[in-house]
Amino acid sequence: MVAVVGGGQLARMMAPAAAELGVTLRVLVEGAGASAGQVVVDAPHGASADAAAVSAVALGDAERRPADVLTFEHEHVPHALLHQVSDAGVPVRPGPHALEAAQDKIVMRRRLTELGVACPAWAALPRDPEAARAALDAFVAAHGGAAVVKTARGGYDGKGVRVVRGSADVGEWIASAALDGPALLVEEKVPFVRELAAVVARRPSGEVAAYPVVESVQRDGVCAEVLAPAPGLDPALAAHAQAVAEQIATALDLTGVLAVELFEVDGAVLVNELAMRPHNSGHWTITGAVTSQFAQHLRAVLDLPLGSTSPVARWTVMVNVLGSRLTALTDALPDVLADPAVQVNLYGKEIRPGRKLGHVTVSGSDLAEVRARANRAAALLRGEDADDGVAAPTADATRRNA
Amino acid sequence: MVAVVGGGQLARMMAPAAAELGVTLRVLVEGAGASAGQVVVDAPHGASADAAAVSAVALGDAERRPADVLTFEHEHVPHALLHQVSDAGVPVRPGPHALEAAQDKIVMRRRLTELGVACPAWAALPRDPEAARAALDAFVAAHGGAAVVKTARGGYDGKGVRVVRGSADVGEWIASAALDGPALLVEEKVPFVRELAAVVARRPSGEVAAYPVVESVQRDGVCAEVLAPAPGLDPALAAHAQAVAEQIATALDLTGVLAVELFEVDGAVLVNELAMRPHNSGHWTITGAVTSQFAQHLRAVLDLPLGSTSPVARWTVMVNVLGSRLTALTDALPDVLADPAVQVNLYGKEIRPGRKLGHVTVSGSDLAEVRARANRAAALLRGEDADDGVAAPTADATRRNA
Repeated sequence: MVAVVGGGQLARMMAPAAAELGVTLRVLVEGAGASAGQVVVDAPHGASADAAAVSAVALGDAERRPADVLTFEHEHVPHALLHQVSDAGVPVRPGPHALEAAQDKIVMRRRLTELGVACPAWAALPRDPEAARAALDAFVAAHGGAAVVKTARGGYDGKGVRVVRGSADVGEWIASAALDGPALLVEEKVPFVRELAAVVARRPSGEVAAYPVVESVQRDGVCAEVLAPAPGLDPALAAHAQAVAEQIATALDLTGVLAVELFEVDGAVLVNELAMRPHNSGHWTITGAVTSQFAQHLRAVLDLPLGSTSPVARWTVMVNVLGSRLTALTDALPDVLADPAVQVNLYGKEIRPGRKLGHVTVSGSDLAEVRARANRAAALLRGEDADDGVAAPTADATRRNA
Repeated sequence: MVAVVGGGQLARMMAPAAAELGVTLRVLVEGAGASAGQVVVDAPHGASADAAAVSAVALGDAERRPADVLTFEHEHVPHALLHQVSDAGVPVRPGPHALEAAQDKIVMRRRLTELGVACPAWAALPRDPEAARAALDAFVAAHGGAAVVKTARGGYDGKGVRVVRGSADVGEWIASAALDGPALLVEEKVPFVRELAAVVARRPSGEVAAYPVVESVQRDGVCAEVLAPAPGLDPALAAHAQAVAEQIATALDLTGVLAVELFEVDGAVLVNELAMRPHNSGHWTITGAVTSQFAQHLRAVLDLPLGSTSPVARWTVMVNVLGSRLTALTDALPDVLADPAVQVNLYGKEIRPGRKLGHVTVSGSDLAEVRARANRAAALLRGEDADDGVAAPTADATRRNA
């Protein structure tokens, strides 16, 4: 029995994989109507920072036996709580120590730097406002007049990340950091060619398996589209990116799926972010690889042998459905499914602007065609005309987000 | 919202497909611990012949809104009950009229004969015992000294089917038929080369989609293994088998998945049985085809466009796990999953001799290798040594069950 903290779409997508493995799932969901709560029978309600709720889901209570392992669909669980569960005898995977590098971007940068992993130039900003302003302005000056400031904790999908030209652009963040708000770090604004992601899985015994490196097309700081594998990527660079992800997983003694978001720069890759759980850049594996990242995550945290990461088609493209003008996404299914190659995955979430509501995947042998079909399906689910918002396939699909 | 009668593995395997489509599932399960009840949140208990239970699952009750459609994982629902639900305004798919041909083998043979579909020679036996004995003995004499007697209703997986040399071999069935037990029919014992299955889906609008024709390897009257597509099958015969299945689906005005079990005889196919639901011969589609038969069934009964039936690999082999010496199938996972190409699907059922507890699939380009790996995995799940019970791949894999 696997207990999962978090009731969003990532926990939801673990459910089919668990059913197939004959493994029972227990999910701590935020409340009624949660995405995962709709498809998991044992889904108690509670916040991921609520010690009693996390404890009950992991260690059991009057009605529930202890889980075999506790895992996560997000990193926002207090450190002390994880140690408490682990000390009580239920393995926490990934472990608290590894997870810290996903919870705190300063910890992450420090560890990666120690490992010799190539990252953007970076610096932690002091808590003192005056010192922070001086450090930030000096960093910006040294890096071409612009930089990226991030909150060390709590950011996601572009939140907690801001491009700045000077300390005045993040005055309120600096003030907040001085008052015990999230600490800040600054990173160089990397002139990247495109963004890539390397998804790997590792189990306690040490076995590691790597998926093909994908291109992640971002719009407004959010992953919009994933092209698997990354078109035109130099095989040596792809192998290097996989090796870096495997190195990080091993060095951090990580268990489960690790997604490493990367910047491709002239013939090299720099690590942007880490996620220690199934990740949006791996959703294509549900239909496009022999073993989905969700099945792989469950295998990994249960210390079962990892499955094949081979793709089942030359190309698979995944497109997120971010917000919709429809009242129900299922209303679009008659049009969307009229393309027999389109595979949809809807999360059962209430529609809100920009919210990740589902995704579509298409596999095939012609990248431009696959991409056009997937984007058309996503546009229909967003309630747009079939040809609105469609990324027209180009001969050089690899450079769209350059 | 789709309501399903029956809580076995077929309903269980609809759950992932429903979740992905963003469609809610409600399943009428036989009782606590049912295979589907473990993975479906809304799973009331009740028998499939219980009018109140079927009515509540379809039409709703104090806590439940009416379903958009009622469907099945088996055919054993009383006819009058289906009409009642349909008359109350909830579509029943497949409809009661079509379903009758899957519930009653005499009705099935009569309809197929009317359609001009090639079947084994057959005759309904009279209810009068003396007349039945005379008719059966005459049929046997006219068909080479052996025949197959079947109960018209209630049989499955080899039950209700007996090879006979004369009426004395089914004396108690004849006596039972005279006392209002199941009516009997007799069929010629077909000297088939092998058994095939053609799985198609049809939706109310009339759209039909056919999966590749597969070989179904039977052992002791139960499907043991499915090879997809059927190795070495003449493409013209494969197309003919698909056309026959499509003809039956259309002529019976069927909605949902239809599995047509076929005998291959010298250059022709004869229809053996029909199943109007996802079927064991289609389990390979979960991992081996773009659209699984479970997703296809849901699309069909919801009148959504049907998905691609294309295979994702040259060969996919599915092997059933029938019974096990283990105390829990999950105990075998460390060994089974050591082969990264193996995909398991366990049904969460209590272990009993001969019971269908799960299946494994392997896809690849070399049939003999794929078959050996799938059989090895199934043997491990049965608690046998890896090399017990393994169907050794042969150069001519198509003739193993001739």
